[in-house]
Amino acid sequence: MAALKGNAVVGQAGGPTAVINQSLVGVIQEVQKYDHITHLLGARHGVKGIMEEDYIDLKRQPTEMLELVAYTPASALGSTRHKPKGEDFERILGSFKQHDVRYFFYIGGNDSAAAAQIINKLAQEAKYDLRVIHIPKTIDNDLLVTDHCPGYGSAAKFVASAFIGDNLDNRALPGVKINILMGRDAGFITAAAILARQREDDGPHLVYIPERPFCVKKFIEAVGSTVDRIGRCLIAVSEGIRDEKGVLWTKRVVDEMEGGRGKVETDSFGNLQLSGTGSLADYLAGVVRSELGKRKSSLRVRADTYGYLQRSFPSWSEVDAWEARLCGQMAVSYSLEADQDGSVALVRLPGTSYACGTQLVPLESVAPSCEPKTKRLPDEYIVPAGNYIRDQFLVYAGPLVGNLPKVGWFEQVKTSHPYGGLA
Amino acid sequence: MAALKGNAVVGQAGGPTAVINQSLVGVIQEVQKYDHITHLLGARHGVKGIMEEDYIDLKRQPTEMLELVAYTPASALGSTRHKPKGEDFERILGSFKQHDVRYFFYIGGNDSAAAAQIINKLAQEAKYDLRVIHIPKTIDNDLLVTDHCPGYGSAAKFVASAFIGDNLDNRALPGVKINILMGRDAGFITAAAILARQREDDGPHLVYIPERPFCVKKFIEAVGSTVDRIGRCLIAVSEGIRDEKGVLWTKRVVDEMEGGRGKVETDSFGNLQLSGTGSLADYLAGVVRSELGKRKSSLRVRADTYGYLQRSFPSWSEVDAWEARLCGQMAVSYSLEADQDGSVALVRLPGTSYACGTQLVPLESVAPSCEPKTKRLPDEYIVPAGNYIRDQFLVYAGPLVGNLPKVGWFEQVKTSHPYGGLA
Repeated sequence: MAALKGNAVVGQAGGPTAVINQSLVGVIQEVQKYDHITHLLGARHGVKGIMEEDYIDLKRQPTEMLELVAYTPASALGSTRHKPKGEDFERILGSFKQHDVRYFFYIGGNDSAAAAQIINKLAQEAKYDLRVIHIPKTIDNDLLVTDHCPGYGSAAKFVASAFIGDNLDNRALPGVKINILMGRDAGFITAAAILARQREDDGPHLVYIPERPFCVKKFIEAVGSTVDRIGRCLIAVSEGIRDEKGVLWTKRVVDEMEGGRGKVETDSFGNLQLSGTGSLADYLAGVVRSELGKRKSSLRVRADTYGYLQRSFPSWSEVDAWEARLCGQMAVSYSLEADQDGSVALVRLPGTSYACGTQLVPLESVAPSCEPKTKRLPDEYIVPAGNYIRDQFLVYAGPLVGNLPKVGWFEQVKTSHPYGGLA
Repeated sequence: MAALKGNAVVGQAGGPTAVINQSLVGVIQEVQKYDHITHLLGARHGVKGIMEEDYIDLKRQPTEMLELVAYTPASALGSTRHKPKGEDFERILGSFKQHDVRYFFYIGGNDSAAAAQIINKLAQEAKYDLRVIHIPKTIDNDLLVTDHCPGYGSAAKFVASAFIGDNLDNRALPGVKINILMGRDAGFITAAAILARQREDDGPHLVYIPERPFCVKKFIEAVGSTVDRIGRCLIAVSEGIRDEKGVLWTKRVVDEMEGGRGKVETDSFGNLQLSGTGSLADYLAGVVRSELGKRKSSLRVRADTYGYLQRSFPSWSEVDAWEARLCGQMAVSYSLEADQDGSVALVRLPGTSYACGTQLVPLESVAPSCEPKTKRLPDEYIVPAGNYIRDQFLVYAGPLVGNLPKVGWFEQVKTSHPYGGLA
């Protein structure tokens, strides 16, 4: 079957990443090669732009500006958290028909894949020829099927870099340091903290992820014994940690608080807003201070919440940038050359050194109607105690992050030090 | 007078910076040129290491490792928050005599300059020949006399870079975003956020510093009118903002909180710990949410506290790194060649392009016995309303930060957008 002629729409959705514009530019540059597509309409703020027919033509952008946009974090077209409902989809298809749109490229997470799937089915039912391709994007790295998600490598690099610096800071002024990291359901971002280690006693010394229940008593014990051993403790904690009953610790902390602070927001999906609040960090620091402070009053305890910097800081992993671009290019290629719908997935090629290709997978495999709808950090990467990450994870995540800052030190400076210890 | 023969001690104190090791390496490399100094003793954890005679010899370190250490953030010798008292100083001088120390190089802020001054006087009283040189270091940029402080440029670069990304994120998903920045008494770090602006309506749109009283009512009015105008508002707030009576807002917030959270720490100087708590960010987000949310319930409000990343993230301003190294080198040069005590100060040379030299100034000018003991952001950089920074500040801070990531955008994408607005 010959490729369809007409226009194309590209949109970006959900939380931006450092490389989401790489995928956008990949789409634009690939579309420029084909005469089949007359106009490439960029939908401003995702499906909202489509519904409101708020488009800009992207086909004839100068190469220089495209390259600058590619290396600019956050969604150049604007993003949206709006989850389209029944009649929204009719408006979307109406907008496509109105503008003779025959190709729809949607860069986003599993909600975007689900939306793409519904639009695809509606078009089929209406016998309207439309190619729909989902391009994966999420720092959480929690999409099904794909080996990893564009956006993750750059977020992981930020986290690993930050832990390199924070570990040195904690070494210089010893104490307990807790950092809260993104990832509501999956521990991939938090696990990336272990990439920071360059010396034997480097932090993080403890890692807590949503995949394992978080028990405050065990946490205090583990922190205390680390401080006893090396005089300090650097800890990575996912914002998505839950108690034994599956209740988010952030929810428990917020529920316990009274007066003095505004309510924490819930999003349009009813989820408690985890990022952009320091509640969990402050709570955990308070617990460590009151429990371990009994033993040593001078124990220094600090907590940070890395927050939106994890997805917005203007730095990136080169591999991540390259793969995000590739996914955008391949989305166009699959739709025109192979005349197929689906989601672009990254496939790690077997072998000792890292190499990744792409394949097109069914939209329903990325946005299934039944659980699990997202990926979790595999068990093989988690130690039995549930408070640290195995070295195998480095083999998985290392190549996605690439080179990290290398630190220097004086051999004569002992790596652990009694100052600040609980002796 | 001929230069003294003997040993030298170098130490690092206070909060680490991204370039404090540049100054250390500057000292080491310069000392290596002189035969007068037999051993260069690195004191581990500042004055604590001197008192406990915990030294390592730094004179014969390989050049490669020195260069790696120079570009490694945080204090390679370890730091300390310990403020020496009466008998501590006797021990310090005793340690110097014991090890035939004739040169003392202390890298730190104004507390370190004050300590250096006391040690200098004690040595003079004891008729013990000792050259004492303070090498400035602080991300806060609040030391007297010097044009700016090594460490500030790199912290300012991190903040400006973070705001570049956060502004794009806020543009993609419009709403109110509040970022809390370091600086207990001086607004230099917070003011650096304005270096992020590249487009007309880029954030930060409001900047609040410790130098001006912070009024919640006026704050809400300013945020509301910005959201009305461009549909979003990005805000830089110093952790050191105070009310009309001079009370820290963080203290007020913590005092108002009851239950559910541990007490916030005070340091050994009795200061309330401001960094490493998300209280202020969460409080301000809560206030915006409850006040402006009345007018538009879908208004997205988020807050981050950048925390220790500002001083520990492994990135730096090239100018800052170079100047920090220079200050270390010149400290050695002044003490040996000019046989003087004092504090190294950076002096900006007049002219259109940026150039900086050094001079040696009296220790008491950097650590005076009466107020003001530190520098504030000059009035000329602050707008009359007290909620923004004048462009003149860019002339001062721009060269210290150097190149920032350049962003790309599509001209057709309007810079302001009704989504998320309060219309």
